[in-house]
Amino acid sequence: MARGDLTDAAFEAWLTESDAAAAPGTSFFDTQLGFAVRRWCPPLLDLEPHAPPRRYLDRRRELGAAEANRRLLGATGIGAYVVDTGLPGDLTTPQELAAAGGGVPCHEIVRLESLTEGLADRADGTAAFLDALDRAVADAARTAVGFKSLAAYRHGLDLPPERPRPAEVRVAADRWLVTRAPGERLTDPVLLRHLLWSAAGTGLPLQIHTGFGDPDLRLRRSDPLLLTDFVRAVRPTGCTVVLLHCYPYHRGAAYLAAVFPHVYADVGLTLAHTGARAGAVLAEMLELTPFGKLLFSTDAYGLAELYVVGAELFRRALVGLVTEWVREGAWPAGDAERVAALIAADNARRVYGLKTADGHPDTTR
Amino acid sequence: MARGDLTDAAFEAWLTESDAAAAPGTSFFDTQLGFAVRRWCPPLLDLEPHAPPRRYLDRRRELGAAEANRRLLGATGIGAYVVDTGLPGDLTTPQELAAAGGGVPCHEIVRLESLTEGLADRADGTAAFLDALDRAVADAARTAVGFKSLAAYRHGLDLPPERPRPAEVRVAADRWLVTRAPGERLTDPVLLRHLLWSAAGTGLPLQIHTGFGDPDLRLRRSDPLLLTDFVRAVRPTGCTVVLLHCYPYHRGAAYLAAVFPHVYADVGLTLAHTGARAGAVLAEMLELTPFGKLLFSTDAYGLAELYVVGAELFRRALVGLVTEWVREGAWPAGDAERVAALIAADNARRVYGLKTADGHPDTTR
Amino acid sequence: MARGDLTDAAFEAWLTESDAAAAPGTSFFDTQLGFAVRRWCPPLLDLEPHAPPRRYLDRRRELGAAEANRRLLGATGIGAYVVDTGLPGDLTTPQELAAAGGGVPCHEIVRLESLTEGLADRADGTAAFLDALDRAVADAARTAVGFKSLAAYRHGLDLPPERPRPAEVRVAADRWLVTRAPGERLTDPVLLRHLLWSAAGTGLPLQIHTGFGDPDLRLRRSDPLLLTDFVRAVRPTGCTVVLLHCYPYHRGAAYLAAVFPHVYADVGLTLAHTGARAGAVLAEMLELTPFGKLLFSTDAYGLAELYVVGAELFRRALVGLVTEWVREGAWPAGDAERVAALIAADNARRVYGLKTADGHPDTTR
Repeated sequence: MARGDLTDAAFEAWLTESDAAAAPGTSFFDTQLGFAVRRWCPPLLDLEPHAPPRRYLDRRRELGAAEANRRLLGATGIGAYVVDTGLPGDLTTPQELAAAGGGVPCHEIVRLESLTEGLADRADGTAAFLDALDRAVADAARTAVGFKSLAAYRHGLDLPPERPRPAEVRVAADRWLVTRAPGERLTDPVLLRHLLWSAAGTGLPLQIHTGFGDPDLRLRRSDPLLLTDFVRAVRPTGCTVVLLHCYPYHRGAAYLAAVFPHVYADVGLTLAHTGARAGAVLAEMLELTPFGKLLFSTDAYGLAELYVVGAELFRRALVGLVTEWVREGAWPAGDAERVAALIAADNARRVYGLKTADGHPDTTR
Repeated sequence: MARGDLTDAAFEAWLTESDAAAAPGTSFFDTQLGFAVRRWCPPLLDLEPHAPPRRYLDRRRELGAAEANRRLLGATGIGAYVVDTGLPGDLTTPQELAAAGGGVPCHEIVRLESLTEGLADRADGTAAFLDALDRAVADAARTAVGFKSLAAYRHGLDLPPERPRPAEVRVAADRWLVTRAPGERLTDPVLLRHLLWSAAGTGLPLQIHTGFGDPDLRLRRSDPLLLTDFVRAVRPTGCTVVLLHCYPYHRGAAYLAAVFPHVYADVGLTLAHTGARAGAVLAEMLELTPFGKLLFSTDAYGLAELYVVGAELFRRALVGLVTEWVREGAWPAGDAERVAALIAADNARRVYGLKTADGHPDTTR
Repeated sequence: MARGDLTDAAFEAWLTESDAAAAPGTSFFDTQLGFAVRRWCPPLLDLEPHAPPRRYLDRRRELGAAEANRRLLGATGIGAYVVDTGLPGDLTTPQELAAAGGGVPCHEIVRLESLTEGLADRADGTAAFLDALDRAVADAARTAVGFKSLAAYRHGLDLPPERPRPAEVRVAADRWLVTRAPGERLTDPVLLRHLLWSAAGTGLPLQIHTGFGDPDLRLRRSDPLLLTDFVRAVRPTGCTVVLLHCYPYHRGAAYLAAVFPHVYADVGLTLAHTGARAGAVLAEMLELTPFGKLLFSTDAYGLAELYVVGAELFRRALVGLVTEWVREGAWPAGDAERVAALIAADNARRVYGLKTADGHPDTTR
């Protein structure tokens, strides 16, 4: 989460994946996400549901960020956080997030590209850099619960599937280190593949961003089906692949989860951004995805509000669907409850190897 | 609209995007569009809803085209027409359409390829042709409210995004003018890009056909996401891009409208052709599209019936969705009404710079 | 159908398109298909709906495969089978299937690749092989009601559309016969195209696998829209093209069926695998597909249970949709019944030239 109080413009900027101000005559509050925030968050700050943006922002500032965040996070029902720590900006640490969330456990996902860029900023030659990268991945694997790749943003998922040969990696790293300005992002396809395969070798789950996001990516090149050959190639390593977000290619992701035992799908930021349509979209993910293969997450960052709406929309969407399917007689009531618990928390606990303190099926980020 | 009375075959041909007669044993009336026409049009000609095609066609002929068109258009509730005037065939002028529609305002969209082909038919050398094209675009910009590109039909949207250099344009124009038979359609990708960029330079909105249409196009090459790099490249010009139709790639179009301030989506012919499913499809468009970024249109042409069903299906779909979302508590009632007015008319008025005579939120084509 | 009794593992393997055991901690019964089997099949074996997998498998074994299959197939309401006979494994013949199904008529679809591989196994030179292939296709056309292509599995549908020249075919056949191990599958794109065109020349309908299936295929390369240019090229031959399955690209298949008179879409395995969502998916197919162009099938094989759920889910999905559309006033009641009969059986009878013994609109495979 962003630290401290936010200006109106900063708040609205966190409400969108766009990199620009809203078009003239429009507002990012006039979106499914904006309407969902207005539905679920004002009551947590003592306002009525659907309070206008102006009143909500004033009240948020009046309470102060710390109190507002405490109230918002406290209401999510999230029982454990699994947090990508590679995001830029002045954000809370996982520890601070866990504290603000009422002391629930917090686990780390290491963003491969951020890790690599940090090492490149202080690299002393290609060989040393690649050694340091190997060690850093191995070190991260001892404390983190998974890795995450942003290859979709940095190149597109249309990458050659196989592990790059060491000589290729050396040449690519050489070129990158020589030409790179400090802080410059990693976009080299050979190095991006090297990261995917390095993570796969650790035995930890590998999250891959797929589907929509900010305008940096080309959506067609983020189709999870572009990973099909990588998924096949990496299968013998035992690596678990978690496809994040997936929208609007979530049916393709569901197919991969259905036919490859080591592939999982995660709703990611999809439900928060589709708001009143979250149930309809979740239903599409539940066409082919085996029920033991779908994971809940919020992809929230920046605003505590995004945790609230991510969790609330997911919970209502899932309950709505299984209630309806039980009512129609298509699903048995007992199994429906079990499947809901799988998707809400148990699948994530199994995939990431999380321990439950008390064994109760809390919702995991 | 087509002038005069229509044979049965001509009427049925306007009911489909196909270029052939219906397959043996089938009828174009047996489609969602056909059922929608039968639902909404017969009562306007004094028949019961769902009257069989035979009775409807007989009654239409009995009344005569002029009277039938007057009755049909008069019932659409459309408050202003924005009409592409580049279609072939013996069609009414915008002025005749406006008169038949009860005297509502009518605005013109200039179809770039038709304009160019007309100039090519009477061109006297490449330099003169390109000058004339420049002037024609500038002239059109003084009276029209926007331009429209059919690049999807003529090549596919998989075009290089950047503005072609003047020398490239000259070479392409040279080649085209030399080899072209009179009336031949423009398919050269350099010239198609030149048209897009020429229109972008005028400051008027640029409509681009995306998604389905008649069998002339290759649907995969009409995915609006193929325009992503063009959308980025054209952004500094201030050009507003309106993605028409979009189906079945409407979620991708919605993404572009969500992340790029200068991109809008338009439902186009999608709702008329999906009939009983119009609400479901509109709901998908309303997942990511910001509410200030979605426009209504009918894409009607040929038959007055298409204006009726385009408007009727849109209105019922939109009212159905927002009513449901308000009922579920997901949307606030006041905002729902405001958003419905945005999509039905206000967004189009803002984008095309239309004036409201009396300020009431009539539906725009 | 598989012959004889099945182990638990074998049963579960037929429940998925995956080629592997379910992931640790998951079960293929925990899918929409698994839940649908548990909903519809246990009552046919004297158990309550939704009986747990363990009880169901025990009861199935207790009854024996022959009795279980007889009960299951007897309950499908299928009035005629149209069966692909090119599947590997110890499966029942069409005659045995028809007998187990209570003596309904059974028709054959010839799988082009299997036919070809069988001839290659005993080929004596390229010229003789190609002659034998021509004869085999012509012979099959005398008894079968259609052909089926698996080009999606063997190469992808991104094939050059035009008929390969005889010299190309000879060269490709030469190379294939020389390098091929006995039993090896056909993947050569020239020969795959030769098969498509050979079948097209017979005048029988040509089924093409599109959309999802087992992990052998690359789903992006199974998009039916990749066939657009083939569909155009083959049009003058009068060949009818039936696009099978189509999911998740069924809206693209619907578009092809809408604009090309010789193209049809078939729900295939889509409804069985999407279970509680079958109605939603069928509704999407019914957006653009003309009602005379959509065919029902189950794609069932291996388990009699798949015929039951394929037929049951289709019937309930279709009845659910048309009932709703009639209730909303969008569809006329009389036509709704007629359209349901078209999709359930009449379209298939017309396309495959099947005779009805008694003229009643039974469901066709």
